[in-house]
Amino acid sequence: MDKKELEKVSDFPLGEENVAFAPYFIGKSYLGLLNDKEVSIHNVTFEPGCRNNWHIHHGGGQILICVGGHGWYQESGKDARLLKSGDVVYIAPEIKHWHGAVSDEAFAHLSLSVPMEGSSNEWLEPVTDEEYNMMPMPIIYSV
Amino acid sequence: MDKKELEKVSDFPLGEENVAFAPYFIGKSYLGLLNDKEVSIHNVTFEPGCRNNWHIHHGGGQILICVGGHGWYQESGKDARLLKSGDVVYIAPEIKHWHGAVSDEAFAHLSLSVPMEGSSNEWLEPVTDEEYNMMPMPIIYSV
Repeated sequence: MDKKELEKVSDFPLGEENVAFAPYFIGKSYLGLLNDKEVSIHNVTFEPGCRNNWHIHHGGGQILICVGGHGWYQESGKDARLLKSGDVVYIAPEIKHWHGAVSDEAFAHLSLSVPMEGSSNEWLEPVTDEEYNMMPMPIIYSV
Repeated sequence: MDKKELEKVSDFPLGEENVAFAPYFIGKSYLGLLNDKEVSIHNVTFEPGCRNNWHIHHGGGQILICVGGHGWYQESGKDARLLKSGDVVYIAPEIKHWHGAVSDEAFAHLSLSVPMEGSSNEWLEPVTDEEYNMMPMPIIYSV
């Protein structure tokens, strides 16, 4: 997807291609740093179909603030939740989960975490095409 | 301003009229709680011309994430900064400041803070009409 188009997914700066975490993602994503004082805040933009691997935050949780497009959030053993701009998700520590775009539309969320000593991310297996394609095609009404 | 119209200022829930902090605001504002775990997050929507009093956060700072309309942020002794959706402001502790809508348009920002023992807000004098009207009329281009 064209970088100019991805810049329109949200009002927040797209940033640079997310190379650092690419080994733990399927598809291409972008990372824009918005704040690093008290709360670490990044804008994460996913190309259509892009999602991160199953992973666990140890020590501290994470908050997603959805700001553009449509995406999925799923906790292990639960149904995936369809996300749109204006939705907020709190991910408690020790919860196995993944998030990413729907298959036919880009998605952007802000990712927030409170830097804590001893906290870490545990990256697990990818969300396979089989798992990802089990998701119902969302019916999205334009506003 | 009509509540239905204010709901359109951002994609985030408008919440209820901000009665608790009304003594420290000029004009009407709304407060919607979005998250209370690890980081306290509210959506704050200001009617046109609405602003909070000069105030200081002691112990911990605050982060504003702008999500709709146009507003002002000003630190004591500095020029006011015009804010639009996609802007992020970090307000360090002990900085005297105020924020609010421009005079002719509503404004919404998310307000984030990390709950800390011993932190407090010190509310000071209102931003007078004289101070507020010194602000240049912003030239806002539609996107």
